[in-house]
Amino acid sequence: MAGSKKKITALDIYDTTLRDGAQAEDVSVSLEDKLNITRKLDELGLTYIEGGWPGANPKDTDYFREVRKIDLKHSKVVAFGSTRKASNKVQNDPGIRTLLAAQTGVITLVGKSWDFHVAEALGISLKKNLEIISDSIQHLKSKKKKVFFDAEHFFDGYKSDPDHALATLLQAEKAGVDCVILCDTNGGTLTWEIQKIFASVAQEIRVPLGIHAHNDTDMAVANSLMAVQMGARQVQGTINGLGERCGNANLCSILPNLQIKLKIKCLKDKQLARLKEISQYVYEILNLVPNNRLPYIGDSAFAHKGGIHVHAVRKNPLTYEHVKPESVGNRQRFLVSDYAGRSSVMQKASEYNIQVEDGSPEHRQILDRLKNLENRGFQFENAEASFELLMKKATGGYRKFFDRVGFRVIVEKNEGQAEAVSEATITLKVDGKTEHTAAVGHGPVNAIDHALRKALEKFYPELRDVRLIDYKVRVLPAGEGTASLVRVLIESGDHAHTWTTVGVSEDIIEASWQALVDSIEYKLLKGHPVRRRKGVRKSTH
Amino acid sequence: MAGSKKKITALDIYDTTLRDGAQAEDVSVSLEDKLNITRKLDELGLTYIEGGWPGANPKDTDYFREVRKIDLKHSKVVAFGSTRKASNKVQNDPGIRTLLAAQTGVITLVGKSWDFHVAEALGISLKKNLEIISDSIQHLKSKKKKVFFDAEHFFDGYKSDPDHALATLLQAEKAGVDCVILCDTNGGTLTWEIQKIFASVAQEIRVPLGIHAHNDTDMAVANSLMAVQMGARQVQGTINGLGERCGNANLCSILPNLQIKLKIKCLKDKQLARLKEISQYVYEILNLVPNNRLPYIGDSAFAHKGGIHVHAVRKNPLTYEHVKPESVGNRQRFLVSDYAGRSSVMQKASEYNIQVEDGSPEHRQILDRLKNLENRGFQFENAEASFELLMKKATGGYRKFFDRVGFRVIVEKNEGQAEAVSEATITLKVDGKTEHTAAVGHGPVNAIDHALRKALEKFYPELRDVRLIDYKVRVLPAGEGTASLVRVLIESGDHAHTWTTVGVSEDIIEASWQALVDSIEYKLLKGHPVRRRKGVRKSTH
Repeated sequence: MAGSKKKITALDIYDTTLRDGAQAEDVSVSLEDKLNITRKLDELGLTYIEGGWPGANPKDTDYFREVRKIDLKHSKVVAFGSTRKASNKVQNDPGIRTLLAAQTGVITLVGKSWDFHVAEALGISLKKNLEIISDSIQHLKSKKKKVFFDAEHFFDGYKSDPDHALATLLQAEKAGVDCVILCDTNGGTLTWEIQKIFASVAQEIRVPLGIHAHNDTDMAVANSLMAVQMGARQVQGTINGLGERCGNANLCSILPNLQIKLKIKCLKDKQLARLKEISQYVYEILNLVPNNRLPYIGDSAFAHKGGIHVHAVRKNPLTYEHVKPESVGNRQRFLVSDYAGRSSVMQKASEYNIQVEDGSPEHRQILDRLKNLENRGFQFENAEASFELLMKKATGGYRKFFDRVGFRVIVEKNEGQAEAVSEATITLKVDGKTEHTAAVGHGPVNAIDHALRKALEKFYPELRDVRLIDYKVRVLPAGEGTASLVRVLIESGDHAHTWTTVGVSEDIIEASWQALVDSIEYKLLKGHPVRRRKGVRKSTH
Repeated sequence: MAGSKKKITALDIYDTTLRDGAQAEDVSVSLEDKLNITRKLDELGLTYIEGGWPGANPKDTDYFREVRKIDLKHSKVVAFGSTRKASNKVQNDPGIRTLLAAQTGVITLVGKSWDFHVAEALGISLKKNLEIISDSIQHLKSKKKKVFFDAEHFFDGYKSDPDHALATLLQAEKAGVDCVILCDTNGGTLTWEIQKIFASVAQEIRVPLGIHAHNDTDMAVANSLMAVQMGARQVQGTINGLGERCGNANLCSILPNLQIKLKIKCLKDKQLARLKEISQYVYEILNLVPNNRLPYIGDSAFAHKGGIHVHAVRKNPLTYEHVKPESVGNRQRFLVSDYAGRSSVMQKASEYNIQVEDGSPEHRQILDRLKNLENRGFQFENAEASFELLMKKATGGYRKFFDRVGFRVIVEKNEGQAEAVSEATITLKVDGKTEHTAAVGHGPVNAIDHALRKALEKFYPELRDVRLIDYKVRVLPAGEGTASLVRVLIESGDHAHTWTTVGVSEDIIEASWQALVDSIEYKLLKGHPVRRRKGVRKSTH
């Protein structure tokens, strides 16, 4: 086994998003989702994809039948299962048979390495445990499979009874296993314990070692990397660190750490540059809210807010960025907030090509209005189109394209109907002419959107090009039930761009209305910019 | 400086949630919030609370005036600022003056330890940098302050120019500093680098050392703990790991790791048992969605889903839990999902005292209905009251208390008004008698809630005791704008309990209606349980 000093030339990345990751709370994955994620992980270029536990549920069994029809370029699909039951002969064990029926070239077998679990969960002798490990592996090897052994709870086992823990690995080695993975199943092990125990094991075992870490002490990534330093040649983890309880080791942190920091080539550079895209894909397909604060691939990972940081990073990104955001497909961002204050507003103004003088009345007005809106629950960090409108309103770069007169939405349902019916009526004025339109929709917001555009499209045909891309609702805390404030973010797009606007109200319909109107005004101002003469505010309508 | 082998007797925990934490994206904190968080951190029993950077913005300046009026029991408030500007004499430096004006007993000064930053950000010589550090600290010491030196970018500095990096610490030591904190400002340092560099520094420096880690490589907690192993006696971090970019080292992981794993007493046990409460408090006051997957204090941290895990943990929690959830104020949970399948439904049924036989038609019906609803976007993991209703409907434990006939909601606004007006009309039947009521509310959902309860309270007066506690909206992905599915979770409570129900529809009003009706039915069934005779389904209405 390699020590920590040798240059590492080969390292296998083993993804278990589809098996251990699916154990995460709020994660529910369909067969089609599993196949789609498999395709993406293959594009990313991972060595192994653990597809599931055949037999554990019908979906996992079906997966192995369907995945054979996909032509994977880089990855090998692995079936996961347990060593045989104590009461069965290995040939007749239903679990082992189902594993073989999955027809993968590689099988990962999990077995017990902690004496406590052998007694408590299996209720058998340590000797019997070794027998089970041995003949389960031998049987799969006799069927020409590549076999990995997941030594469950290895570190807890080693602390409790090092002889038995080590014996399980030696037994696996003797049975012909291809890699032995030390699992921190409960995630309770500390980094220097991994360091020490890995070093001891590496002296005893000749087959390659791997690491499978959980994040219950918040150290899963450090533990995985430390294991690599101490000789591990297979690293198991999941995309976005999904997994039971606090999750598995996050491959989205491990991959750039290995490749950029340790210079261990796991993927092609252009594959690594797709890491953020693939992280987002997995979040979306699993219908989870992304964790923006995740290292490397989170939206906030290279976002700067403190005035000093913004200033320094603009001069040289190395001052406050440890790697290049583009290397993992992420990007540098500057945030709008009262914390950064004046310099941040100036920075944003120059990004939008809006002329504001530092300390001018316009500058003051933007800061005051910003503060006032933030106090009322607005946030502009993710609604830059609304922020741009706000700046334009203060600097004379805005004009009204229509006047709002009023709206009414009716949502009605009789129990005989399958769905409620929503109808919106809108009144507005364009060039002094009153427009009164009505439209139905899927829900009240959709109905308002239809009515608003119906009223305006004849005056501004370019609005036909605009569509709603995403709609987010956040109920602001707390404790007042349905009377709380509601913040709505609406992302819109045309053939060339996307933009996001915000609205806040106690009433979700009113908040949506604000964000929709901002979105339309933003689009119209792009097509009909207001040219500002020095010192004169132009307002044609 | 202590080596890693001595038993650690004193360790200071230094919280920077109010300064570095406030730099996180989406975090905006008012003066009142800052004072409230200060009170909570004091109750938790932390040694130091960094309150802000006086002078950086008016809020932080005001904070130090107001916080003096609070009688803190455990914590000392610290003012944070920078070493003097190169062009100023220390006595006249506005930053240093403002720091002193904050009137705290302890001041933390940040200064440069990375030669690249000295040249790039300050544009001065290394010698000048040492002078600045020296006389800034001396000046504050001459005013009888306790002074900590945050050595910014220390690890990057040590890798680039170890002599200068070390010289900055020695200069601080010579100037009389009370603690030197090695900062991994860009968060790019790996755990074994911390281990090695800390060991070298600890041999050269006599004043106590501290660690300030950021999470850009996903190792902030491991790095902080490793520093403690190597001699650090002050650990800086934030609640929930909030902070710029990927955040600071998470004190909610560090505290239990230190106290439970390393047996280093930082807090009283009963204070540690409030950790989850305080984590939630900070999330709520900052208006952030909690990260449920956080170690120790996340809702998912002790949540079990896989069938094997559920089975083993019920036998003995040690099998899959590394510490007792109660030690940090958390709790064990079992989740409902198709992954756990049959055994999980049986587990839940027995929790609710509902008799279902394994494999019976009722059992089958629950599984089918569950699968069907999950496919339509429902999730029951956080809506157990709706799940309990579903089980009762399948097992004869349910009866109708009223029949829904229909509802209508009107939301109307004329631009003269400050807010939209929402009115709901509801028709339902109780014991064959038609009830037709109307009510207004803050927004359409609030109006429906009012009307529904108005109609039912005369028949079921116990509903007066029910109130809405929280209302959450999730727009399910993606790409269809306002026509997407919407999932609504409603948390309700009476004087004794709280419960959560779910609704899903394209229409947010309809989804809310479903969740509200579930909530009322759940409450009524608790007060009027249906007694089931073997084999007979009772339905009195």
